[in-house]
Amino acid sequence: MSLTLNPRAKALKVPGIRQFSNQLVHFPNAINLTIGQPDFPTPQAVKEAGIRAVEQNLTGYSHNAGLLDLRQAVNTFFTNKYGFSYDPQNEIVITNGASEAIDTVFRTILEEGDEVILPAPCYAGYEPVIQFCGAKVVYLDTTETNFQPSAEKLAELITEKTKAVFFNYPSNPTGVVLTKETMDQLVKLLVEKDVYILTDEIYSENTFSGNHHSFASYTELRDKLFYIHGLSKSHSMTGWRIGFLMGPEEVMQQVVKVHAFNTICASLPSQYAAIEALTNSKDTPNEMNVEYVKRRDYVYNRLMAMGLHVEKPNGAFYIFPSIETIGLNSFDFATKLLHEGGVAVVPGSTFTPFGEGYIRISYAYAMPVLVEGLDRLEKFIKVIQES
Amino acid sequence: MSLTLNPRAKALKVPGIRQFSNQLVHFPNAINLTIGQPDFPTPQAVKEAGIRAVEQNLTGYSHNAGLLDLRQAVNTFFTNKYGFSYDPQNEIVITNGASEAIDTVFRTILEEGDEVILPAPCYAGYEPVIQFCGAKVVYLDTTETNFQPSAEKLAELITEKTKAVFFNYPSNPTGVVLTKETMDQLVKLLVEKDVYILTDEIYSENTFSGNHHSFASYTELRDKLFYIHGLSKSHSMTGWRIGFLMGPEEVMQQVVKVHAFNTICASLPSQYAAIEALTNSKDTPNEMNVEYVKRRDYVYNRLMAMGLHVEKPNGAFYIFPSIETIGLNSFDFATKLLHEGGVAVVPGSTFTPFGEGYIRISYAYAMPVLVEGLDRLEKFIKVIQES
Repeated sequence: MSLTLNPRAKALKVPGIRQFSNQLVHFPNAINLTIGQPDFPTPQAVKEAGIRAVEQNLTGYSHNAGLLDLRQAVNTFFTNKYGFSYDPQNEIVITNGASEAIDTVFRTILEEGDEVILPAPCYAGYEPVIQFCGAKVVYLDTTETNFQPSAEKLAELITEKTKAVFFNYPSNPTGVVLTKETMDQLVKLLVEKDVYILTDEIYSENTFSGNHHSFASYTELRDKLFYIHGLSKSHSMTGWRIGFLMGPEEVMQQVVKVHAFNTICASLPSQYAAIEALTNSKDTPNEMNVEYVKRRDYVYNRLMAMGLHVEKPNGAFYIFPSIETIGLNSFDFATKLLHEGGVAVVPGSTFTPFGEGYIRISYAYAMPVLVEGLDRLEKFIKVIQES
Repeated sequence: MSLTLNPRAKALKVPGIRQFSNQLVHFPNAINLTIGQPDFPTPQAVKEAGIRAVEQNLTGYSHNAGLLDLRQAVNTFFTNKYGFSYDPQNEIVITNGASEAIDTVFRTILEEGDEVILPAPCYAGYEPVIQFCGAKVVYLDTTETNFQPSAEKLAELITEKTKAVFFNYPSNPTGVVLTKETMDQLVKLLVEKDVYILTDEIYSENTFSGNHHSFASYTELRDKLFYIHGLSKSHSMTGWRIGFLMGPEEVMQQVVKVHAFNTICASLPSQYAAIEALTNSKDTPNEMNVEYVKRRDYVYNRLMAMGLHVEKPNGAFYIFPSIETIGLNSFDFATKLLHEGGVAVVPGSTFTPFGEGYIRISYAYAMPVLVEGLDRLEKFIKVIQES
């Protein structure tokens, strides 16, 4: 045969966010507000736990599902904090970041022709993974409902082909947290439907007012729900690559095989560091949140003062102002802002077409960086509006 | 729809080696000769490099393909040692172990209905990954040619459906190294065929006499060859999860996307440790090899003395004696040996049906363990032969 490739691999689209940030090297003096990882170091005690594992030669393979001690720590953490429980022996798998958890669960459940419903705007990395499995994404537009997915609209989209509905709240890119009322309505609908629910709650520890509510707390969804989490955001551990995947035992038996053939197990020093993060260092996200709230308030007030419409985010570390009044699409706006204003933000269109008309600003940056970035943004907008 | 799963996930077979070693917990006094990871610790300088990265907060994301410094170290290492070169910018991806490299490259190239030819007996983890992509494995029997894959036999198996041929030498489970003559004949054939060549040479640093020859040194295969390697075996770094995948630029552009959507990047502390392994600590495998050769010779001589037919292995840390004269199939033999003889070995049938009639013994164990294990094996065989 000829040296062809899997056409689905060729069709994989590199997220626009990467394409955009690749430009950044050409603008060394730009203020970069695009990055989706905390600017804090990994907590000291967590670092020390990782170091101790290396010193003690705890660097062999673990069980495919991860160290049992870690799986137990995962269960204890979520039980204490959110009141739901998964069996460490059979219902929890430690993955190479939440990213691998998502890929693995989709590979396990999706069949050719399936549909997955995604509230949008959303992270651009979900759709390619779904398409790579031969399935199709159906977007649920949240732009007219303050970025809260409407149960009514969701009901209209669920068909015989729907295999799963995917949630990511607190949301990247909007920072929006679901109201309890929205969740109740969604759950009431979903409990009646034969669809899987995937919930990527990786930003749950970065929730700023009130408690985070988890879809996993609704026991009526338990037999068809996958809970995805990890330490990248909560403990500033992106490069350690630790994710958690939880779900009902019967399906997790299949999931763990897909995970094992993909990668055997997650990094061992990282797994030991993760145990520390979820036990003695479980409250460090609160310390980061104090900073995030200050920054969120500052950025929100500045954007409001510029006359941009913006939802006040209650989680994650992103804010998603509308730029509709400026008269440029989001890619052109962001490009012009980078070239002429010296600030890098992410065009909303990167987060599906439903993000058009917005830009994403990350506030995972120190205050002086935010001040300078917003000064520049303000000046840039004034120049545009006066021209 | 109903809550169905991807049937290919359900069909994934857990390798028999796992099933077998799961029994071991019930035999706490058994001598375990089944494990496929070195019994040495990770070299001290490599551990220190990983620790330094953590201390210096080098724990964020890297480029999807891995740290450029690491990709450069990879290229320099293989160029100096084996004379072939890949462009660090565009032709090398750092993966979560060789395992992820294999999964990723198969996901990139395989289409439904493709066939992949595997010389057998071989590692049981390849077939499921291939089947999961909707492709089929065609085994090339090497049992009648001293475990060297015959070019003549390979020629008979290549059809219009053949997408790739996969090699793993030094071999798990046989420990066999390809002769230069065998490789020349295989290359002569393959250069004429429109098939990809995947070569998993993860045991190359554990080659005991003469130099390892790499398929990647044959420039005439360059545009269709993927080279798979990693540090698990050479530097006793299984739990650090670092693999290398190299191939022609055009295809690697697709490969890196599949890798990125799967896992973003490999663990950062592990990537920094890997740089040390490939530079200042590049010769540590030689120190381990001095030990492996002593053990290999001891085990080989003991097995010969027991009257078992066995190829003397020249690489990896496995030996694969025939048990045909004993009159039990390999699973029954290994089970009986564990229950009655107190030694765990891996049944050859675990490594495809072509491994039937053999057992795999790992000598990645200290000498006293090997002595006791072989004493018990000898006694067990005597009892069987006298009964």
